[in-house]
Amino acid sequence: MDVNVLGIIAGFLTSVSMIPQLVKVIKEKNVEDISLVMLLVLISGLSLWVWYGIKKDEMPIILSNGFAVLVNISLLICYFIYNKKN
Amino acid sequence: MDVNVLGIIAGFLTSVSMIPQLVKVIKEKNVEDISLVMLLVLISGLSLWVWYGIKKDEMPIILSNGFAVLVNISLLICYFIYNKKN
Repeated sequence: MDVNVLGIIAGFLTSVSMIPQLVKVIKEKNVEDISLVMLLVLISGLSLWVWYGIKKDEMPIILSNGFAVLVNISLLICYFIYNKKN
Repeated sequence: MDVNVLGIIAGFLTSVSMIPQLVKVIKEKNVEDISLVMLLVLISGLSLWVWYGIKKDEMPIILSNGFAVLVNISLLICYFIYNKKN
């Protein structure tokens, strides 16, 4: 299999697997299971992966980690919105 | 920064961020927040990332995704152990 196709499928699967948590948090407006520290560690790590992908010029890495950064920044925004209310 | 060092730091951060969920599931023996389908999608995606890393000969990708596969297979095992009990 072409390695870029492989990376795109891999990135698609790992990206899809993140959606339900975001949907659940938005639906239930409940962030008590989310650790702020871990979310910040994860966003930092994912951002470094995007940087790694840019340096190596690997589109599957840039796209999938870029998407993951967006999902987790959305979770971070939810964290601050719903954590205040409680 | 050397791109391999960058990848190792990125992989370390994204790996560390997975530990608390595993610890929480083991401690609380509660898997009701875990979706089996998503766990299987995630493990498939991470395994393809390992394959991608092997094809591209990139150690940071192999190590971090390999670690993530182990963490998520542990979650899968927990899922079957604790789901049966309920």
